[in-house]
Amino acid sequence: MVSSMYMANAQTNQEEFLAKWNGMKGYTVEIIEAMPEDKLDFTPAEGVMSFREMAMHIAGANVMMASKFLKEGDPGMDMEKKDMNKAELKMAVEKSFDFVANICKSLTEDELAEEVEVFGGAMVSRRQVENLIDTHGIHHRGNMIVYLRLSGVEPPAFRAW
Amino acid sequence: MVSSMYMANAQTNQEEFLAKWNGMKGYTVEIIEAMPEDKLDFTPAEGVMSFREMAMHIAGANVMMASKFLKEGDPGMDMEKKDMNKAELKMAVEKSFDFVANICKSLTEDELAEEVEVFGGAMVSRRQVENLIDTHGIHHRGNMIVYLRLSGVEPPAFRAW
Repeated sequence: MVSSMYMANAQTNQEEFLAKWNGMKGYTVEIIEAMPEDKLDFTPAEGVMSFREMAMHIAGANVMMASKFLKEGDPGMDMEKKDMNKAELKMAVEKSFDFVANICKSLTEDELAEEVEVFGGAMVSRRQVENLIDTHGIHHRGNMIVYLRLSGVEPPAFRAW
Repeated sequence: MVSSMYMANAQTNQEEFLAKWNGMKGYTVEIIEAMPEDKLDFTPAEGVMSFREMAMHIAGANVMMASKFLKEGDPGMDMEKKDMNKAELKMAVEKSFDFVANICKSLTEDELAEEVEVFGGAMVSRRQVENLIDTHGIHHRGNMIVYLRLSGVEPPAFRAW
């Protein structure tokens, strides 16, 4: 309800992005919270990221992509730490989302429109980078939802903001 | 490469959205293509959508959300048809993505900024609805990637546009 009210007041693309981004942070934390601590190493197949690794990957990729393509900065936490427990995973995710949000808030409209080189040499605007980072997290939350099902856990309901 | 070049020429949020949306259509079709026809009924747990149902769900939800929240229209195909085979699933997905794209292209900036009521009574702009529809598909492709892994199939590489 709070997020709906915020959304109603969003006037620009950037405000809309930040409102959604904040919601996606909460959803990611809920998904991690839903997994029992003793099942964090669950993986659906050999050679595929475990649930724990995937949570670390979302947090690490948020920071890496924002630092590399939007603006350099310090997330205030070592995102490379191995074998984070559930509380650490949730904190890393929160810090990584806040790190991205703070960078996004600091960008001017001109900086958002400016093109930067991303993976594979593609030139995209920083607005597109914001959406790339968001899309990456959504994708892996989609993976993690199935990991929860396979671990006998009813996942938190899908949400898009 | 073609999509990178298109991206480089995108000047507005809406052009950027449409370039991404078109890429997401191709990625969805690739994911369906990767699943063997005899494994379309794979489901990871009781009561959870099968791979076939999830592909139908993405196509159906694209059409439903665009019709309900963006602008009414006819997708030119029965999205409710049960037990589509792989060729039909791919066609339904393509038609549903094209349906959404055509509606999005037809919306003016004023219409995109206008707020509409969505699930749960939230008021959001049509721009936000576009992102909601995109997010829904990304989420379920994330699910389907794990279905592929569990079926012994190496999934197509993640992409965000």
